[in-house]
Amino acid sequence: MPIVSEKHRESRKNIILQAAKEVFINKGFNAATMQDIINASNVSRGGVYTYFKNTEDIFIELLAKRDLEDTWELSILYEGGKTSWQVLTDIIDNIAMAIEQQQDKLVPAIYEYYFTRAWESKRHLPSLELRFESVKDHLAYILQKGIDDKEFTCKAPVEDVARSIITFCDGIYVGSFHLGPEKIQLRKQFNVFKTYIQTCLFD
Amino acid sequence: MPIVSEKHRESRKNIILQAAKEVFINKGFNAATMQDIINASNVSRGGVYTYFKNTEDIFIELLAKRDLEDTWELSILYEGGKTSWQVLTDIIDNIAMAIEQQQDKLVPAIYEYYFTRAWESKRHLPSLELRFESVKDHLAYILQKGIDDKEFTCKAPVEDVARSIITFCDGIYVGSFHLGPEKIQLRKQFNVFKTYIQTCLFD
Repeated sequence: MPIVSEKHRESRKNIILQAAKEVFINKGFNAATMQDIINASNVSRGGVYTYFKNTEDIFIELLAKRDLEDTWELSILYEGGKTSWQVLTDIIDNIAMAIEQQQDKLVPAIYEYYFTRAWESKRHLPSLELRFESVKDHLAYILQKGIDDKEFTCKAPVEDVARSIITFCDGIYVGSFHLGPEKIQLRKQFNVFKTYIQTCLFD
Repeated sequence: MPIVSEKHRESRKNIILQAAKEVFINKGFNAATMQDIINASNVSRGGVYTYFKNTEDIFIELLAKRDLEDTWELSILYEGGKTSWQVLTDIIDNIAMAIEQQQDKLVPAIYEYYFTRAWESKRHLPSLELRFESVKDHLAYILQKGIDDKEFTCKAPVEDVARSIITFCDGIYVGSFHLGPEKIQLRKQFNVFKTYIQTCLFD
């Protein structure tokens, strides 16, 4: 029998991760120290180091948790008899809203991490690749379902259209991050992009 | 009469900027120090500090120089009787090639600067806004010229299409930076994006 149960371990880890998230939101990735996280979590130094060697370990675990929460339940997306086109535009509209309202307070720290430490350590690569492929596959599934249901055709390979949606959203993320959603005319841009996809599918 | 001529000043500044560029390429933005740049430039400490207070001043001047070099001469773009559609696809193809071949060795340092220091100092904002508007205006001009020449029509406002091209290229930049041009299927993505624009203009 392990002395500390798996459930207890998970709960302690979650306390640390929750506290670390606030630290990263407030200080960014590079400026945050293990001491900051120890202070914020009210877990002992030894306790924190039992689970994580350094701030990058903690940050990577935070990102992995986010990815899990982000999993797209296709059955839920199609609830209420939605068409594939409705599902697709819902997804795009939700992304637009999330970026516009800057809902995700961790984004500055994530960008900081990606473009500084991670770019050298490459530790984000496996999860980033997985995430890219997973989102691409989900979008391609929705597009293919629309074709199979004879809702629309698609003038380009569904995987290419799927990737182009990810790329466009990435571009909007970066533009909004630096210049703000208004300056880059986020809404108008998403509208014209939806027109591109619609024309590709329906014309 | 000034003791040091303007021309001499410019030439000294250029020597420092050229040396600094190599330092930033090799060490990134945050790790580069004034001492590194003094060593690399063979200009005295006092000499370097006459022109620049810190590494951010130098970096911003480097970016301003790049922006100047990037100025699009519309008369050159249209040389040889090119149509607006040809000019537009030439621009997109050139961007695709530059990203694919990672021609610009300063890009990692620029991203690092943008997503760490600049995001807080906001010192990059004026030039970034200017650059965004200038590229948008140039693309919109080309689109409008194609409409005026009755080469095509445009189903969406030309400024929105222009912005969407910038956004898509930004997304490709970021995706290629982290996952590489092959993983994100850069070529296929640009092909499908050109199809979107073509359909928006010609169908």
